[in-house]
Amino acid sequence: MKLVERKMGKVVQVLVGNVADTLEKLPIDSCQIKYEGFVGDIHAGLTMKTGGRQPHYPKDTQIRNYRQVSIVSVEELQSIADRMGIDEIMPGWIGANLAVEGIPHLTLLPPSTRIEFAGGAVLVVDGENLPCIHPGKIIQQNFPNLDGLAETFPKYSLGRRGVVAWVECPGTIQTGNEITLHIPHQESWPLNN
Amino acid sequence: MKLVERKMGKVVQVLVGNVADTLEKLPIDSCQIKYEGFVGDIHAGLTMKTGGRQPHYPKDTQIRNYRQVSIVSVEELQSIADRMGIDEIMPGWIGANLAVEGIPHLTLLPPSTRIEFAGGAVLVVDGENLPCIHPGKIIQQNFPNLDGLAETFPKYSLGRRGVVAWVECPGTIQTGNEITLHIPHQESWPLNN
Repeated sequence: MKLVERKMGKVVQVLVGNVADTLEKLPIDSCQIKYEGFVGDIHAGLTMKTGGRQPHYPKDTQIRNYRQVSIVSVEELQSIADRMGIDEIMPGWIGANLAVEGIPHLTLLPPSTRIEFAGGAVLVVDGENLPCIHPGKIIQQNFPNLDGLAETFPKYSLGRRGVVAWVECPGTIQTGNEITLHIPHQESWPLNN
Repeated sequence: MKLVERKMGKVVQVLVGNVADTLEKLPIDSCQIKYEGFVGDIHAGLTMKTGGRQPHYPKDTQIRNYRQVSIVSVEELQSIADRMGIDEIMPGWIGANLAVEGIPHLTLLPPSTRIEFAGGAVLVVDGENLPCIHPGKIIQQNFPNLDGLAETFPKYSLGRRGVVAWVECPGTIQTGNEITLHIPHQESWPLNN
């Protein structure tokens, strides 16, 4: 697969979370990245158990963890916030491990895109992180005077909620790191229409 | 990422090879698949070292092995053989672990496509296996009365040489297994033109 290189964007926030019953994550200056994912993060692991996002598997099947890392774009989050009529959506509210800026349409980056960070770590895009209601509930908690935010989040964040990725090359990612994308040529599969 | 399910195609050959200085692999009836890849195959491993196919890394960087499995289509191989003026190309000559039939344009399957086998194993497509001269040399050895096959192989096999994939779910793959594809919706990245 031929990859085209583009220096583009940088890291605005690095986040981890390790509390079992919430999606929320907290910003840190930098994070060590291993093959398992972000060290100290609840979504790290070489394998994961399947659930509603993998309906083609029996529930709780052990598979390779292709959702180690959640990456969002601050511009896309602002666009979702604008549509929802709120001031902002913090990356940590919706479980992001990385917030980046300067990559237009981050959510539409082709699957198998390699995202390289100045510190040497490389993540591989699996694909769009399809929105669900859980992050909407955390957004709602932050705007107690408004109604219905949990429900409107999935609707307004489709195509803008970022991507999930897995670790191809370990390293360290820190706030301010510049990014180089390695993007596959996209050819459409003739039967995909 | 939304995946569309299509029952399509079946396994014609399962192959492994474990000799260090050749790409060639030999057909077996069935193979156990682990997270590392095809058990007994030289390309199995959770990690791999980078080389000419990963020019964005320093040579011999240890990274996650996204090239565990080589998959080819018998129809595409026949089309390459026709263009090269030879009777056939055996999947084992060009290092395939799997030969399948009944999946049109296998090589163009979108990255992140999940390939599910009747025995439960699931492989994830990284992308097109770009042709190089090495398989061409093995093809040449099989047609000693013809000239220039090593050189014409890369040219005629571009877009037809199959895909590389990694193991998402372990299991067993055997000759005759029916295949179900789980194919991502392809949206083009607006900056990819």
